[in-house]
Amino acid sequence: MDDARTMLATAVAEARAGLAEGGIPIGAALYGPDGRTVLGRGRNRRVQDGDPSMHGETAAFRAAGRQRTYRGTTMVTTLSPCWYCSGLVRQFGISRVVIGEARTFHGGHDWLAEHGVEIVLLDDPECVALMTDFVAARPDLWNEDIGA
Amino acid sequence: MDDARTMLATAVAEARAGLAEGGIPIGAALYGPDGRTVLGRGRNRRVQDGDPSMHGETAAFRAAGRQRTYRGTTMVTTLSPCWYCSGLVRQFGISRVVIGEARTFHGGHDWLAEHGVEIVLLDDPECVALMTDFVAARPDLWNEDIGA
Repeated sequence: MDDARTMLATAVAEARAGLAEGGIPIGAALYGPDGRTVLGRGRNRRVQDGDPSMHGETAAFRAAGRQRTYRGTTMVTTLSPCWYCSGLVRQFGISRVVIGEARTFHGGHDWLAEHGVEIVLLDDPECVALMTDFVAARPDLWNEDIGA
Repeated sequence: MDDARTMLATAVAEARAGLAEGGIPIGAALYGPDGRTVLGRGRNRRVQDGDPSMHGETAAFRAAGRQRTYRGTTMVTTLSPCWYCSGLVRQFGISRVVIGEARTFHGGHDWLAEHGVEIVLLDDPECVALMTDFVAARPDLWNEDIGA
């Protein structure tokens, strides 16, 4: 669990940077099989780039560039991955997903678990606070980001 | 079916442009509820941009920019959408997917149909030929693109 907490700190730093930019505070990182090497990190960029395709997880995946395999990698994200980002994890065979919280949004992580992805749900109070505050302040933006 | 064929021509043009650039020949477009307005169009950009997150469908979605709703929209793609792109369709509530072919790759379109997305599978010979030829020529690139 210690490595999961360390990974989560990277994702939280991305989420906080996104919030400071006026963006949606969701951050993520893709870690290599050693659990220490950051292959890519990123944050939701809907507001910053006007790009609806860049969720936190997809931004981290993009930042990692082309990889021959994702076996053994971990995607860490501050929030339960939506269907889009869950599909990413399943398609590319990312082995593990570390999730900050799933209280404010419950995405596709149960589906991923059914398909053999290891899920670590941390229920982190800082992640919950980040999203709770954001959804209360900008429900319009949040709903836009999940197509609701 | 006529509008589906017209839409597919847009996706095929994108796929052909991608092939000419040395890329993976998969193209897509997002059409508005009127079935005529192209909100965004794009093609797989793994090779061209070194960007694994840009599949044909995600490129078209990105090109459409921020939208308040995807209700009534159609995603047309030359190839059955992978889990990543199927997740995109489900998360954002895209109403319909027009698919050029599902012979060379069978992605998540049955899952989408189960979740209420209208699926139009055209089994188009030109789309089949594009992918059959490409997979035979560059199996390495194709496997990389689907995380296989």
